[in-house]
Amino acid sequence: MSIVTLTTDFGSSDAYAGVMKGVMLKINRELEFVDITHAISPHDIQQAAYVLYSAFSYFPEGAIHLCVVDPGVGSSRRPIAFEAGGYFFVGPDNGVFTKVIEKLSPSFIHEITNPNFINRSVSNTFHGRDIFAPAAAWIARGGFAMNALGSQVVDPLLLDLPKQTQSAPNLIEGRIIYIDHFGNAVTNITSGLIAKLQKELGAEGVEIEFPSGVIKGILKNYSEAPDSAAICATIGSQDTLEFFVRSGSASGTYGLSVNDDVDVRFY
Amino acid sequence: MSIVTLTTDFGSSDAYAGVMKGVMLKINRELEFVDITHAISPHDIQQAAYVLYSAFSYFPEGAIHLCVVDPGVGSSRRPIAFEAGGYFFVGPDNGVFTKVIEKLSPSFIHEITNPNFINRSVSNTFHGRDIFAPAAAWIARGGFAMNALGSQVVDPLLLDLPKQTQSAPNLIEGRIIYIDHFGNAVTNITSGLIAKLQKELGAEGVEIEFPSGVIKGILKNYSEAPDSAAICATIGSQDTLEFFVRSGSASGTYGLSVNDDVDVRFY
Amino acid sequence: MSIVTLTTDFGSSDAYAGVMKGVMLKINRELEFVDITHAISPHDIQQAAYVLYSAFSYFPEGAIHLCVVDPGVGSSRRPIAFEAGGYFFVGPDNGVFTKVIEKLSPSFIHEITNPNFINRSVSNTFHGRDIFAPAAAWIARGGFAMNALGSQVVDPLLLDLPKQTQSAPNLIEGRIIYIDHFGNAVTNITSGLIAKLQKELGAEGVEIEFPSGVIKGILKNYSEAPDSAAICATIGSQDTLEFFVRSGSASGTYGLSVNDDVDVRFY
Repeated sequence: MSIVTLTTDFGSSDAYAGVMKGVMLKINRELEFVDITHAISPHDIQQAAYVLYSAFSYFPEGAIHLCVVDPGVGSSRRPIAFEAGGYFFVGPDNGVFTKVIEKLSPSFIHEITNPNFINRSVSNTFHGRDIFAPAAAWIARGGFAMNALGSQVVDPLLLDLPKQTQSAPNLIEGRIIYIDHFGNAVTNITSGLIAKLQKELGAEGVEIEFPSGVIKGILKNYSEAPDSAAICATIGSQDTLEFFVRSGSASGTYGLSVNDDVDVRFY
Repeated sequence: MSIVTLTTDFGSSDAYAGVMKGVMLKINRELEFVDITHAISPHDIQQAAYVLYSAFSYFPEGAIHLCVVDPGVGSSRRPIAFEAGGYFFVGPDNGVFTKVIEKLSPSFIHEITNPNFINRSVSNTFHGRDIFAPAAAWIARGGFAMNALGSQVVDPLLLDLPKQTQSAPNLIEGRIIYIDHFGNAVTNITSGLIAKLQKELGAEGVEIEFPSGVIKGILKNYSEAPDSAAICATIGSQDTLEFFVRSGSASGTYGLSVNDDVDVRFY
Repeated sequence: MSIVTLTTDFGSSDAYAGVMKGVMLKINRELEFVDITHAISPHDIQQAAYVLYSAFSYFPEGAIHLCVVDPGVGSSRRPIAFEAGGYFFVGPDNGVFTKVIEKLSPSFIHEITNPNFINRSVSNTFHGRDIFAPAAAWIARGGFAMNALGSQVVDPLLLDLPKQTQSAPNLIEGRIIYIDHFGNAVTNITSGLIAKLQKELGAEGVEIEFPSGVIKGILKNYSEAPDSAAICATIGSQDTLEFFVRSGSASGTYGLSVNDDVDVRFY
């Protein structure tokens, strides 16, 4: 059995994700599907890039990560596939793999053009069904080199995603990059950089500024919040700084959004 | 491993779909489930008929398509099962299989009454658990003829679903039959009939009228839309005409609903 | 293949549930996952206790029921696992297993502390990934006694869930304990107690009182409702009294909520 994960913006009300699975099973019955999510905001390539990156490495080697957030379907944007870090990735060349590519530096990326690995007829509106799903199922079957898929892509489209910066000896500037189901607001500020500065400076305290306020200190876990309705900060499951409200939604109550600036200042 | 697909209006917040899977696994461990959707609008038999039809043929032969949208549960409406086109179908006799039956013309449809293939005790409110899931799991195990399930049904309930009509040499009249997660409004007007008329008439252009407006032309894909907020038409993944807004919701912005009239006029 | 069911409040938009599955598959490839639901209301332990209880027994023996509704993650609340009724249960010791424990009376409950059965590094915000998923996957692999997980827990946290009471010869007092996707309001008043009193009293009729009204009679199924918009009562799929509106939402239209009082009076 090969594992195929799915990350899409298809939602769960239509048959689209199920159809992709059917197409894959027609080619390869030895597949186990794991839905990462089908609830990426429609056409939100940056969100897909973040979610896929946060999940891919938890799967066994050999897993095939299929990502279809594809506003440019049917246009000249290329369908691509590559092997990296022991995994396979299949999806549109529109930036959804930005963080994966930056992390894993795949040796080769291939455009998917070989008609043997895609549907005989390809629609202009659903390449998930007609190109990406078949390619993923064939890759899971194996028995061919990845360059059989098509010619090499040397310039994959990479998004210019916001990065944390240390803009003063005691200051980290970052951004909110994701709001989760609980309303937790995840930033791109890493626990590693926070710990490094804290140690270097022998800092007494830390202050965290966001558009609608300033808080002090980083809690060890959600339960440490002294007040169940107050916004607090902790280190989340991706080892990055995140805002939360113990019994509510940090994003909802404090108006936090993706791309909001966040400053971490040591004193 | 047999494939069982599920199409229901159970939503994803309750245990109902999971319970059906548990019931099936108790009877037959060699099952692989694929959720088509559990988000059919509550009791919307027509929507279920469309969604199931749009998905069933993408699965490998032998797949069992279980559909439970069943407002008449516990009443005299019959539970049915049939084999057609290499697939098996299990669900209520209330019209959910209308399009499948019209397409595949099953030789036999059977009422599910044999107590060997259903739960020992049958509730009046959850036949998905007590009749349809067990029957599907037994069918997947095989080893019996379908007529063992119960007596033949010669008059399955078929919905009178809207069909496209060519009401003048240069006019196709159809309907919106489905709104998807992206707000795309799918019609029952086929690319085949559009192409046929266009060729016969040597038509220069095409005009598409819907309740809230008129547009000209059918685009090749979503990316061709000249304006990201304007309503446009293309041929969707079911080879039918559909309305979309490139960076938004055609249904939401232009107030399109299922059953709205759509006219395609060649000039 | 071992069956692992998942009941969480993670929602379906984030990668959290998928990550837990990836972690389990890294430890044990012979797993079949069934999602009970990921849509427990955030942090609603009582709802999780009800949903898990309504589903667990429909699965084959040996199934592992993983439940992660865990507002106290990272605090001193204990991670636990136990075997009971032929099933395994894994999750936080915060009351999510109240109804299961009351029903099955497990002989032993164990805290999960043995580092061999959890992740090498454990975050303070995602024990689903770092403790519960690994423990479930190892339990599915088997080959060790449950007491290898950690020391015994003799005082699991049990919620004081509302129970039906017979407060007069002709009166049952209960509560609404769950609202489902259709807006049906499920009570904790059992068909068994209703039938018993009806028989003992030779009662002519039954009257059901709820905060916003009173109705008479218990219908056999949804289709018997004389009026498609009126609130009615029937015996639901858990063999308990439930309110419904045939073509609508009982909860929405009649303002019913979890914990509302319900009286059943025979006359």
